[in-house]
Amino acid sequence: MELWYSEEQTENVRLSLKVKEQLFTGQSDFQKVDVFDTYEYGRLMTLDGLVMVTEKDEFIYHDMIVHIAMAVNPEIKKVLIIGGGDGGTARELMRYQGIEHVDMVEIDKMVCDVAKDFFPTISSELDNPRLSLYYEDGVAYMKGKKNQYDLIIIDSTDPVGPGEGLFTTDFYTDCFNALTDSGILVNQNESPVYEQFAREAIRANEKLKKIFPIVEVYQAQIPTYPSGYWLFGFASKKLHPLRDIQAEAWNQLNIKTKYYNTDLHLGAFALPTYVKEYIENGSI
Amino acid sequence: MELWYSEEQTENVRLSLKVKEQLFTGQSDFQKVDVFDTYEYGRLMTLDGLVMVTEKDEFIYHDMIVHIAMAVNPEIKKVLIIGGGDGGTARELMRYQGIEHVDMVEIDKMVCDVAKDFFPTISSELDNPRLSLYYEDGVAYMKGKKNQYDLIIIDSTDPVGPGEGLFTTDFYTDCFNALTDSGILVNQNESPVYEQFAREAIRANEKLKKIFPIVEVYQAQIPTYPSGYWLFGFASKKLHPLRDIQAEAWNQLNIKTKYYNTDLHLGAFALPTYVKEYIENGSI
Repeated sequence: MELWYSEEQTENVRLSLKVKEQLFTGQSDFQKVDVFDTYEYGRLMTLDGLVMVTEKDEFIYHDMIVHIAMAVNPEIKKVLIIGGGDGGTARELMRYQGIEHVDMVEIDKMVCDVAKDFFPTISSELDNPRLSLYYEDGVAYMKGKKNQYDLIIIDSTDPVGPGEGLFTTDFYTDCFNALTDSGILVNQNESPVYEQFAREAIRANEKLKKIFPIVEVYQAQIPTYPSGYWLFGFASKKLHPLRDIQAEAWNQLNIKTKYYNTDLHLGAFALPTYVKEYIENGSI
Repeated sequence: MELWYSEEQTENVRLSLKVKEQLFTGQSDFQKVDVFDTYEYGRLMTLDGLVMVTEKDEFIYHDMIVHIAMAVNPEIKKVLIIGGGDGGTARELMRYQGIEHVDMVEIDKMVCDVAKDFFPTISSELDNPRLSLYYEDGVAYMKGKKNQYDLIIIDSTDPVGPGEGLFTTDFYTDCFNALTDSGILVNQNESPVYEQFAREAIRANEKLKKIFPIVEVYQAQIPTYPSGYWLFGFASKKLHPLRDIQAEAWNQLNIKTKYYNTDLHLGAFALPTYVKEYIENGSI
């Protein structure tokens, strides 16, 4: 007998990974959480049947959601993560000695518990004393926050289910207010390849552009996410991700990364023409 | 009843596309050729069960196998395509008025015939009078050629089956000799994500480095190829793909592309650290 995990990336496309065994299944108040041990990608966590993280390719997503902003402003001291329950984003942030404190607001405690139990290399910094972990709704948490964070990372699921409120204009406005005057917001922003994802990416981008003076989109290759091609948003009050990159300062920190480097940083913003046109036109 | 085309990308990973109907199946002297009409990617041609081309994402591969070299030397006049039976590479080349002649050597006439019958938007230039199409073995064709081409594009299948000889040192040496003194060779060079592909990519790169003074690797996101992340090789006698790019001259040609642009050209050579290390070390 062969076991396979299959994700319906769209109703017409499936990615399937051969599985050694299922290690966990649970239903939290928010979503179904499963852990599989796969042959090609090591351990895999899914939320409501969608790939959240695998041991083999998580470094790509976590490098790209953290180091781009940190290279633009290596002086960042206070960071907020919305979501990020597996701990990978916190792990990458903790490599910066200059970061004084990270608040992390994850709505679903089960995700963190499962990460600690089954993904020790990803969740390794969730008990770091520089991290405060709140099991709360990110949308509610942001209300009324002013001038507190140099960087906010929205490490969310897709804009359906528990992640939905994290793609709204109200939430982005609360984030803007919670940022310091050199503040940066980074969000995971879906794939441009499949129409339903692309529409969400464009919509989120349009909302950010109404609030932040600088909004740019960058890309990474994440094989286990739909289409393997993923976008991130970079929204900022004054620092530009290309003009203000502090490549030399970042390289002097000597942080070893498997995906990110400061040349790739520049290339990550050089989008294919069809993606540029989606973003410029605000529609497909 | 639902029809799905499933590709075993590795023995542990499958990509499946929902199919409206199968339009063609045939066995040539070299390989099995199938055409499916898929919901997400339009028409799909497979060779021995592996994705060769789809209507939806072919522009990415064909942009990237042609325009990188053409932007480095917009004066290219004589081109050789090895493989490329679907016609997409020839189509992109024919957009350059400065190209005087293209020779195309495709071992399998059935691939061209099927492309003409089922992929009219891809095969549209296969009857162009500036193109000479030879149904021959590319390895044999190259023997003894001297100083004839400004650009050779190896648009091959994987290094198993009919494509195998196109990944050898002897063949690359014949290509070197067939190139003019500003000659460029471009080859499709597999994915770095899965070990068996990555080993082939590294091996091909090591062979090229023994023959050509300039050898660089560049990348593109091709959703229907294994992992969605694909590499190309750029080998050259004297022109460097970054230092010698003629961005302004290329942009003045006003060739509309959906993927390639001259900013992306630079970004395409900014590889993730893990890929750079594979290539520098010559091993995984």
